[in-house]
Amino acid sequence: MKAAYYEGDRRIRVGECVPRAPGAREVRIHVAYCGVCGTDLHIFSGHMDPRIQMPQVIGHEMSGTIEEIGSEIEDWSVGDRVVARPLEPCGQCPACLRGHSHICQNLNFIGIDSPGAFQSSWTVPAHTLHRLPDDLSLEQAALVEPLAVACHDVRMGEVAEGEQVVVIGGGPIGSVVSLVAREMGARVLVSEVNPFRVQFARDLGLDVVNPRETDLVKGVEARTAGAGADVVFEVSGTQAGATVMTDLVRTRGRIVVVAIFAEAPRLDLFRFFWRELRLCGVRVYEPQDFDRAIQLAASGQLSLEKLITATRPLHELQGVFADMEAGAEIMKILIDPDSAGE
Amino acid sequence: MKAAYYEGDRRIRVGECVPRAPGAREVRIHVAYCGVCGTDLHIFSGHMDPRIQMPQVIGHEMSGTIEEIGSEIEDWSVGDRVVARPLEPCGQCPACLRGHSHICQNLNFIGIDSPGAFQSSWTVPAHTLHRLPDDLSLEQAALVEPLAVACHDVRMGEVAEGEQVVVIGGGPIGSVVSLVAREMGARVLVSEVNPFRVQFARDLGLDVVNPRETDLVKGVEARTAGAGADVVFEVSGTQAGATVMTDLVRTRGRIVVVAIFAEAPRLDLFRFFWRELRLCGVRVYEPQDFDRAIQLAASGQLSLEKLITATRPLHELQGVFADMEAGAEIMKILIDPDSAGE
Repeated sequence: MKAAYYEGDRRIRVGECVPRAPGAREVRIHVAYCGVCGTDLHIFSGHMDPRIQMPQVIGHEMSGTIEEIGSEIEDWSVGDRVVARPLEPCGQCPACLRGHSHICQNLNFIGIDSPGAFQSSWTVPAHTLHRLPDDLSLEQAALVEPLAVACHDVRMGEVAEGEQVVVIGGGPIGSVVSLVAREMGARVLVSEVNPFRVQFARDLGLDVVNPRETDLVKGVEARTAGAGADVVFEVSGTQAGATVMTDLVRTRGRIVVVAIFAEAPRLDLFRFFWRELRLCGVRVYEPQDFDRAIQLAASGQLSLEKLITATRPLHELQGVFADMEAGAEIMKILIDPDSAGE
Repeated sequence: MKAAYYEGDRRIRVGECVPRAPGAREVRIHVAYCGVCGTDLHIFSGHMDPRIQMPQVIGHEMSGTIEEIGSEIEDWSVGDRVVARPLEPCGQCPACLRGHSHICQNLNFIGIDSPGAFQSSWTVPAHTLHRLPDDLSLEQAALVEPLAVACHDVRMGEVAEGEQVVVIGGGPIGSVVSLVAREMGARVLVSEVNPFRVQFARDLGLDVVNPRETDLVKGVEARTAGAGADVVFEVSGTQAGATVMTDLVRTRGRIVVVAIFAEAPRLDLFRFFWRELRLCGVRVYEPQDFDRAIQLAASGQLSLEKLITATRPLHELQGVFADMEAGAEIMKILIDPDSAGE
């Protein structure tokens, strides 16, 4: 059995997976698939090195089957098909005590701060587990984690039926945010500049504007009789996105900041005053977002399978990161730790 | 009877007030007092010239007595003591149709976009009026308008009893926001650098930090056992305020942007993500905010009289603006249009 270790300096080494026996309240999972996330790419690129204990197995968008259970586990059995919500809060900090344990001030994000799922055998606390229904494939279940992000974002944005939503950025997260918002009954417009992603969003049946070709503000005004969008999701992480988002929203409309902004952008606070705009930051997910994501994935309504560009063996992970950095035509790559590849 | 006309180029000319007979649904008010607002100073400084039709009578923080009523007025009588909520919405735009008429997309702000209250006789639509209780003096009633701003801001910030509030900026609006938040049962910390305003806030019994002398972030952490403030009001309109505000707020805490930012500041959107912060812009007031402000002012609980630095005749208005621009030790100046001065 194999594991992929991030060793710093854009290197992934594939070595032996050392299965860790579960503690009393843990389970050991046989990982079926683990998706490659933008955060994994950030780690690979070295941007998060101060936070990473190398060599580290990363990866957190997984699906799998329980292989071994701890001595105090009663609700889970060997053979159960599961995904893990990879958050281990401290339970003691002000955020936890207030009920915001998903953004615990001492959060252990499993797969970043502790070993992740780019390996065949993975041991995690049982409280992280969500059960998979029989009709959800393990391939698609590997998309539950990013889908839960989208469920969280759309819930925090309070998207309601009939509302006009704009999603700035049509990458993997922008795509699932768009699909979940549409599932809520919203009209969704995606703003995207990359031709591959523009076409991908169109193939999902989404309304798309390329703001380099068409005036996005006028496009939103035209779609809303001059009112502006009810909710804008900023998923691009760019100054261009941060600049345009305030011009797109109606009076008292909402902006949801999904992207991780490495640098503080300029923001038109006058426009917040003028239209009484609201903005919220969103991060990861709460248990109900995972439940909702599993339900949506199992329903088959979202065409999630279209998001999976390819499934690759573990030893190709370094090449996948290189392709992502080079801007290859990738939406979501799944890693199969058991595959030997071609 | 006199009026003060803004003529551009930092000039106020005092000339004859030309009383306008009220239309069918209007009233003509004898203005008792009109406070000098930061927005009036902006106009005087020329920053809003593109919006002003000169010569223009400005001023909107008024109290007075009805002198004449229009033919269709039934609810108001000559002699009624009133304040006006100086907003005339169009009733047709998307904001109005959605119930946000106070931020109408074609708003006539009376006293900016049409003649204001720096004159003895002022004619306004009857729908703008709020009745004053007998136990509220006309001097203090001239503070109802800025107090209504504070009531709106605190309501939009959803300040609750026992919460820790930080108000960045201890000028006139920061002071009334602080007083209203304290009245709601919040613990209020004011951040202010100007020594006069620091002392003023202390004299109001408020907890004050001068961030040039004391670390504000540590001060808030110490007051909240490391959690951060529940609500921060940004009333300074500075980059320094915009920079520090995101460091002061607890997970899922709220930032209320009260100040008018002429330039787009840099904002730490990473912190919004990290702590799931929320931000809202707030502008003017709705009718219930005026009702609440009148009730609070009449209660005498806020020590509003301390805010009134002086009462001046109309012909001193230009000098008042000059003093404000020079940073004189002023909180609120009232203009008495009938006074001949010393």
